[in-house]
Amino acid sequence: MRETALKPWTVLTSESVFQSPPWIQVSRQTVRLPDGRTIDDYHQITLADYVIVVAQTVDHRVVIERMYKHGPGRVGLMLPAGGINPGESPLQTAQRELLEETGYSADEWRCLGQFVCHANYGCGLAHIFLAHDARRVADPDSGDLEEMEILLLDPREIRTAIRNGEMPSLGVVAAALLTLDAS
Amino acid sequence: MRETALKPWTVLTSESVFQSPPWIQVSRQTVRLPDGRTIDDYHQITLADYVIVVAQTVDHRVVIERMYKHGPGRVGLMLPAGGINPGESPLQTAQRELLEETGYSADEWRCLGQFVCHANYGCGLAHIFLAHDARRVADPDSGDLEEMEILLLDPREIRTAIRNGEMPSLGVVAAALLTLDAS
Repeated sequence: MRETALKPWTVLTSESVFQSPPWIQVSRQTVRLPDGRTIDDYHQITLADYVIVVAQTVDHRVVIERMYKHGPGRVGLMLPAGGINPGESPLQTAQRELLEETGYSADEWRCLGQFVCHANYGCGLAHIFLAHDARRVADPDSGDLEEMEILLLDPREIRTAIRNGEMPSLGVVAAALLTLDAS
Repeated sequence: MRETALKPWTVLTSESVFQSPPWIQVSRQTVRLPDGRTIDDYHQITLADYVIVVAQTVDHRVVIERMYKHGPGRVGLMLPAGGINPGESPLQTAQRELLEETGYSADEWRCLGQFVCHANYGCGLAHIFLAHDARRVADPDSGDLEEMEILLLDPREIRTAIRNGEMPSLGVVAAALLTLDAS
């Protein structure tokens, strides 16, 4: 990291103003800026931290889920993903979600980083994982609300899907491109 | 788009359960899934739609902002970004935010897509823009809460920053990699 004189904000007070446990909490904070100003209604939105998994098969195709998601409100191409359960490490969540949602398993895993979903409000931290040599070992059994189809796409097909608007989620696009860029 | 039998959810009712105008609204929805099940507490979080700008100079460096952001709670490398004001097109917002935050202007603009911030809850739509041949035409004057430093990074430096955890925002990483992938 370079040297910098930039300073963080200081949280003076934080009050929970909405909650729907265990999914959502909204807090209203009073914060002090480095220049001395005080802001008395800056909100933070606490959602579950989650994982996004880019699982590559031995022939370098990626395990993709076609499904409806309610955030974008349409059917699109997604990646295996899900919230981190209490007591789970992010890697354990990634391995569990890949197996449950797709029936795939992999031995070689790498974390490509953690990134906050919304730069102002938070909205959860996404842990992005790359898994190599993924292979189908079981039938999917996610228990999720969404029905899905499993596809295997190569890097060219993924780039085309992003360009054509078939990948509606910012996190999925970030994870897919991080992996293509790392390969 | 490929043919698919996957169906969207149907929103049966939607009730506002928290709002902090004009920034945040949380709705509790009753939704019907394609298999007939009904879920009576699926939430949607409405935040402002926003733009993220990747502005490249004539020598292919990107205009980067080093600043504290309260979502990640730390100083990191960001891109020019901001909420779309009423009556503004996303392109107008992108051009305004680039100029206000960095003092840069550009003539050639391209939209690289729209992506929802959170796949389950929504949390706003990010419009990602690429601007070519950006040049400094004014002093920055953002009026934002955050102080910032303006940097120019080349593609190699951006990849290193992402790998080193210096870019804490999912949207910024998605936008930066979309651009590197498109160049």
